[in-house]
Amino acid sequence: MPDLLIRNVRPMGGAPADILIRTGRIAEIGPGLKADGVAAEDGGGHIAIPSLVDAHTHLDKTTWGMGWYKGRKGGSLQDLIDNERNSRGPLGLDVHRQSMRHAIQLAENGAGHIRSHVDVDTDHGLTLLEGKMATRAALKGVIDIQIVAFPQSGLMVRPGTYDLLDRALAAGADIVGGLDPSSMDRDPKGSLDAVFRLAEKHGKPIDIHLHEYGELGAFTLEMILERTRAHGMQGRVGVSHCFCMGSRDPALNARLMDEVAREDVRIFTTGHPSAQVPSLQAMRKAGIKVGLGCDGIRDTWGPWGQPDMLHRARIVGMKNAMRRDDELELLLDCTARGGAEAIGVAGHEVKVGAAADLTLVAGETLAHAVVEEAPRPLVVKDGRVVARGGQIAAPGVVMP
Amino acid sequence: MPDLLIRNVRPMGGAPADILIRTGRIAEIGPGLKADGVAAEDGGGHIAIPSLVDAHTHLDKTTWGMGWYKGRKGGSLQDLIDNERNSRGPLGLDVHRQSMRHAIQLAENGAGHIRSHVDVDTDHGLTLLEGKMATRAALKGVIDIQIVAFPQSGLMVRPGTYDLLDRALAAGADIVGGLDPSSMDRDPKGSLDAVFRLAEKHGKPIDIHLHEYGELGAFTLEMILERTRAHGMQGRVGVSHCFCMGSRDPALNARLMDEVAREDVRIFTTGHPSAQVPSLQAMRKAGIKVGLGCDGIRDTWGPWGQPDMLHRARIVGMKNAMRRDDELELLLDCTARGGAEAIGVAGHEVKVGAAADLTLVAGETLAHAVVEEAPRPLVVKDGRVVARGGQIAAPGVVMP
Repeated sequence: MPDLLIRNVRPMGGAPADILIRTGRIAEIGPGLKADGVAAEDGGGHIAIPSLVDAHTHLDKTTWGMGWYKGRKGGSLQDLIDNERNSRGPLGLDVHRQSMRHAIQLAENGAGHIRSHVDVDTDHGLTLLEGKMATRAALKGVIDIQIVAFPQSGLMVRPGTYDLLDRALAAGADIVGGLDPSSMDRDPKGSLDAVFRLAEKHGKPIDIHLHEYGELGAFTLEMILERTRAHGMQGRVGVSHCFCMGSRDPALNARLMDEVAREDVRIFTTGHPSAQVPSLQAMRKAGIKVGLGCDGIRDTWGPWGQPDMLHRARIVGMKNAMRRDDELELLLDCTARGGAEAIGVAGHEVKVGAAADLTLVAGETLAHAVVEEAPRPLVVKDGRVVARGGQIAAPGVVMP
Repeated sequence: MPDLLIRNVRPMGGAPADILIRTGRIAEIGPGLKADGVAAEDGGGHIAIPSLVDAHTHLDKTTWGMGWYKGRKGGSLQDLIDNERNSRGPLGLDVHRQSMRHAIQLAENGAGHIRSHVDVDTDHGLTLLEGKMATRAALKGVIDIQIVAFPQSGLMVRPGTYDLLDRALAAGADIVGGLDPSSMDRDPKGSLDAVFRLAEKHGKPIDIHLHEYGELGAFTLEMILERTRAHGMQGRVGVSHCFCMGSRDPALNARLMDEVAREDVRIFTTGHPSAQVPSLQAMRKAGIKVGLGCDGIRDTWGPWGQPDMLHRARIVGMKNAMRRDDELELLLDCTARGGAEAIGVAGHEVKVGAAADLTLVAGETLAHAVVEEAPRPLVVKDGRVVARGGQIAAPGVVMP
């Protein structure tokens, strides 16, 4: 782990200072630091924040750089799932190449951590996982990637998937995934018991996609909360989307948020523009640890999105009607420190003793930096320069 | 009006062709055109579409380039209105300078037409209108600007405003504006009768902001439709936002859309991310002429937005869950040809005989071009080059 001196930055938008990094950790923060023989970077007076965190994405899905994909379907969630599973082969979607493109761009745009789901199904077995594990290895020291073994095509409804998830977790997936235990998997008890059994067997956390709305979603969420409590897995269970906490019944939302906070279940939101989503402000006020994610980027599901967590923060901020500076600062916190905490990375701050895992952002203030569309001037991971001006600069890393 | 030959473009994403412009109009479209002595531009194989149309914005509000504005409020619509009216002076918001910044950037990003509301109130009189009329004059031949005299602080609730609107229309405003006749103006009959009286007196069309939701909004909309019919103003009345047609009652939405289509009332939508908005697909299917708009950009109301109609189209597309290529093509049509039609500019197409008012866009197909974040390669207005690669290139026009 190298030493590095970053001159003339404004940590968290405060007074100008230098940041001295020793063996990959922040050793000193202050004006006019001296460090003979240490490589120096000019921070240009930009704001330094902890690196951004994409807490919910799918690195195995993007068609980025493959030419325009015309075959998108409308229709039900099941249609979209089937279309994707049947399209990977004909499209020639190479998961290692595509996840490299996706992850490198996230790093160029200031991200230091990704939690990515990977499809595990009976058509593809563990091949998609293998492609993504190759990316995780290739980008070690550039961006940290957590991999969720995700039964995108269903767990209970596709026999054989349980054993594949079991093997995926043994092979190197970090987290047990799940998908709509009621609406898609048609057996909430069976599905959730299976997910928690795998988590217990492998000693790994859980992250469940829950798109179910209203009372049905609330029912499934309660079953997740019951099992979190019974298994003593507080702080190790996440629910992605959780649209049921954005229902039209404020009392229901408030009750669910209180219960989620009590069991320290983490919520991952993408600010889905055409769905009802839980209020970011209300979740944080209830004490819930929340991460934001880009979700899929230009894949067989849809054309939208950019591999940039500030781009996503803006979508989430607009969706949540955030206007004031204090709201924009909360939004940025969920995209950096708070998002890291939500995926289990503690102490992700610009402070002495922390990992030197940070990005510079352009703007007068933290609030301005969320809104401003500008490249990240400098991205640093474990004390190494990863990107400059939105272009990858990590030695040996080439965009495929 | 000049002649111009644009070589090697793909009109509406079709086969490569040249476009020959004579005295500001499209004279010929085809491969390998010859035109001795006519200035030529290389289109680089990009797609040519009609120029983009911002059918709903507020050029008099942006703080763009003025430093970060920290004073935003939360709270009610009334709080936001009062905050803005009281902030213009202390902020030093020069409407001519700010509207130039805003409009020039829209042109750089491919827009050829803007419909912009301008606040007319008893504190500011016609001073904001005057600043914007100076911009309209300065940008003649670069971008066309329609000005709506807009009672942002209310018409019936602020005596004296009616006379100011009357004077604004005499002084050069093109369109009579209105604001929430029931919820804000507290007198829907009085407010709408006043608006239609001004329209009749000045022979000008109408564009009313209607944020009112559900049954109240439906009631107000019906009153607008009744007056449209009674005054024979079909095709000359617009309603902006019209959230009541995006209500939770699909039968209500469908009934209102049918009535709006029957009276040829135009709808302007911004795809407001935190509001319920009418479905773009459903409106077009009902036969309604729809325009899209950026609304306010980084002003005292909120920090969001970009002066770029493709940026806004993406917000509208995500909001309306558009995925398929045919949906993206519909979205682009509303941002160009259809948006122009909705604001009363007919025949806005890339075809022989039409005004040479077009932009090039980057992408393999029309659908791709909506999604791709890239500068517009070339923007042409009435046969003159206005911008290249996202930078203003019109002679004598300088970004203030």
